[in-house]
Amino acid sequence: MEEAGLEKGIQMALRKPAVILLSGGLDSATCLAIARHEGFEAHTLAFRYGQRHQHELQLAQLISARMGAASHRVVDIDLAQFGGSALTDAAIEVPKSERVDSIGETIPVTYVPARNTVFLSLALAFAETVEAKDIFIGVNALDYSGYPDCRPEFIRAFELMANLATKAGVQDTQAMTIHTPLIDLTKAEIISRGTELGVDYGMTLSCYDPGPEGVACQRCEACLLRARGFATNGMQDPASSSQP
Amino acid sequence: MEEAGLEKGIQMALRKPAVILLSGGLDSATCLAIARHEGFEAHTLAFRYGQRHQHELQLAQLISARMGAASHRVVDIDLAQFGGSALTDAAIEVPKSERVDSIGETIPVTYVPARNTVFLSLALAFAETVEAKDIFIGVNALDYSGYPDCRPEFIRAFELMANLATKAGVQDTQAMTIHTPLIDLTKAEIISRGTELGVDYGMTLSCYDPGPEGVACQRCEACLLRARGFATNGMQDPASSSQP
Repeated sequence: MEEAGLEKGIQMALRKPAVILLSGGLDSATCLAIARHEGFEAHTLAFRYGQRHQHELQLAQLISARMGAASHRVVDIDLAQFGGSALTDAAIEVPKSERVDSIGETIPVTYVPARNTVFLSLALAFAETVEAKDIFIGVNALDYSGYPDCRPEFIRAFELMANLATKAGVQDTQAMTIHTPLIDLTKAEIISRGTELGVDYGMTLSCYDPGPEGVACQRCEACLLRARGFATNGMQDPASSSQP
Repeated sequence: MEEAGLEKGIQMALRKPAVILLSGGLDSATCLAIARHEGFEAHTLAFRYGQRHQHELQLAQLISARMGAASHRVVDIDLAQFGGSALTDAAIEVPKSERVDSIGETIPVTYVPARNTVFLSLALAFAETVEAKDIFIGVNALDYSGYPDCRPEFIRAFELMANLATKAGVQDTQAMTIHTPLIDLTKAEIISRGTELGVDYGMTLSCYDPGPEGVACQRCEACLLRARGFATNGMQDPASSSQP
């Protein structure tokens, strides 16, 4: 009995809870795999924010369970009520293209106002209550869509703010850390890293505008970036049925 | 016809939309009055976040309408699901006292994890869609309850982050501003300023734990601070039926 108690005490002391933002996409699944590989107890957080499709939420739950997360939670926050984005407003069309060259030059209509700020803020609230000092977000500043809230300077500013916003910032010496393990990686490098760590990309969906059965459109920016990532690695995308 | 068009054009050019966080309490009502006095077109924002009582939401709507706001919106965001606060968890008792001396020394159980961060983030999302560059929040660093997210350093850090998070921060020279007109005022000074600007404090409710009819308990920190504010000014609280 005493040994069992000692064992439990050691496990408690070694417990490193982290909150991981999970969307059902390729990037956040890789981010979760990295957090688990680094030994964190993963508490995954997904958002029902008014996105066009719910497939990604089902996938997020599946990915969380398969990758050994300690808990999974879906938070409702209706960003569609504010409008202003093709991802939440059916009246604004998701742009389609055959090529990837112009991506990132301007802020596209798929930008959801302040989305990462809102998501990270809710992750921060959740982190405080599970006593996590670590938050993982799969933002990427290379193969991304030109969103202002994916830039490293935004993440550093959020982290600074988070440490002033919370009990941890007032009472503790250990600060809140926002981890962005993918921020400097290309899509191809993200896929390589995830593959090494055993991520099944067949479970992930990157498309901004999938069909009713969750089939990727293959022509939005997210689909084009994903396809280029797999192609660069000479890999087949396990989620793509149109691949040979 | 041409003159009407010109008039409309001038009004459009002079339009200064601002988002004002409104809780139904004394501070945010004063904050709204100050924003209106400074010539802003006020878009008020309240939150149904899992607070113990809904009276404050009814009052917020009333205050917004009476004080000439251009729009009022209630956003649902369930912070109670994370737990950790007496304001959202019925299992945690709101502390009661007869005296105000010890307030602010430690972070109390009425602190809601990351609440102001979440509220300001949603205000930021809303501001982007109504093209507002100004957000007003009635935080106060003097007569407050020791919450980390009421401190001036938190507000400045949030503002810095907000300017990196948004389209405005990337595309425009005019930065997003977080206005905190009450931050350096005592409760008595806030009440004086609001009274000058015609705020009817009879419409406001400050209590953390009101009775079923929205009657203030008079013994929580918020009630004690409010009572001291009116007493210092030699004024009667119009919302208090227990006053002579």
